[in-house]
Amino acid sequence: MKIAVLGTGGGARAHIAKLAELGHEVAVGTRDPQATLARTEPDMMGNPPFKQFLADHPGIELHTFGDAAATSDGLVINGIDGHNAVTALSAIADQLAGKTLIDYAVPYIYKPDIERPWPTPWGVNPILDPCDSDSLGEQIQRALPRTDVVKAFVTQEQATVVAPKAIGDGDHTMFIAGADAEAKQQVTGLLRAYGWTDVLDLGPLITARGMEMYAHMHGAIGMALGFGTHFGIKVVR
Amino acid sequence: MKIAVLGTGGGARAHIAKLAELGHEVAVGTRDPQATLARTEPDMMGNPPFKQFLADHPGIELHTFGDAAATSDGLVINGIDGHNAVTALSAIADQLAGKTLIDYAVPYIYKPDIERPWPTPWGVNPILDPCDSDSLGEQIQRALPRTDVVKAFVTQEQATVVAPKAIGDGDHTMFIAGADAEAKQQVTGLLRAYGWTDVLDLGPLITARGMEMYAHMHGAIGMALGFGTHFGIKVVR
Repeated sequence: MKIAVLGTGGGARAHIAKLAELGHEVAVGTRDPQATLARTEPDMMGNPPFKQFLADHPGIELHTFGDAAATSDGLVINGIDGHNAVTALSAIADQLAGKTLIDYAVPYIYKPDIERPWPTPWGVNPILDPCDSDSLGEQIQRALPRTDVVKAFVTQEQATVVAPKAIGDGDHTMFIAGADAEAKQQVTGLLRAYGWTDVLDLGPLITARGMEMYAHMHGAIGMALGFGTHFGIKVVR
Repeated sequence: MKIAVLGTGGGARAHIAKLAELGHEVAVGTRDPQATLARTEPDMMGNPPFKQFLADHPGIELHTFGDAAATSDGLVINGIDGHNAVTALSAIADQLAGKTLIDYAVPYIYKPDIERPWPTPWGVNPILDPCDSDSLGEQIQRALPRTDVVKAFVTQEQATVVAPKAIGDGDHTMFIAGADAEAKQQVTGLLRAYGWTDVLDLGPLITARGMEMYAHMHGAIGMALGFGTHFGIKVVR
């Protein structure tokens, strides 16, 4: 398939590399390709410059967000940070129309008066906005009425979303939510290719609220296990 | 031990029955014992009248919140609903002083303008207040500076908190949080007696935010599995 990945951060790179390995044609979208290619320093999360990533992954093309989305024949992965996602995606609504957009962003807000180092010693991340009475997934869906938004990946570490078998025997749970059953089937197919065996459909996109709000639990579990320990959660029934 | 349970709802009853079965002396606290005993109809969650529960569980004593807390020789379980917990507990701060209070309340708010049937067909519960930048667990701790508050049980269904082995082989995770290591050890001891083998200490009470905010995920998972299906979550590492 021709799949577009919007974003060049750690999470996006994990998908880009895995999708290429699975034989898909991957187009990567960034706000300003020239600026992305000009960077020579690691990004704020310590990822090496994207130019180096491209050199290590031949065949991957870098485009603007809109051009990357336009190349997709059905599936687009949104790796744009939560704070900018709605604005950036609204601007390319035409290129996303008729396609499935997988969103895994967490709407973290870093307010100066409550800013804390990340990760904090007590495992709590910055606050979420929207939270509780709305979700970023729903906001994106409202901004893109011609696109089927599926919330997924968000409850799992970036590195192991594409490598579930790296934890336990891979027997943990991936959650998805969205309005369109066909779109969710498409995403489930991708997840099976990633190695997920337990995909739980939480139903309509309103359940993205819980998926995004789980971020604080996720951070607290990560701190409790020791930073860098890979983990997943399994719904035991 | 002499253990007090504050509240007479479904969650409280599960603890009362299990604690009595384990050989503890259990004192139950309610706002108005006469009113509680006078009820002849099931409560809003469909539980039979508390008088009937007492008849089925001989040896359990019913007191006011304060009198029940006063009988405890170290451990009190808070089963007062989230909306009333801070006010009701503040009023009996003296009787709770020097003890460990296990809090499992979720600060659900039912606002008329956003009220929905519970559980909703889409698995989303009423909104949470406090949420994200504070938690009910922290509010209770601030109201009770002479008491060690431990948040626990909150991520698990009421019925299976005291019967973890009813799900899978009991191999799922119970989370605890609180400032005092000794109090958390006391709670861990109780959890082991309940049958929990995987107790994960999330650290300080600020992580109660994530535990309470997980409520929406919990509701969504429950709806996805089918109402009435018992489940737990396991941190797979």
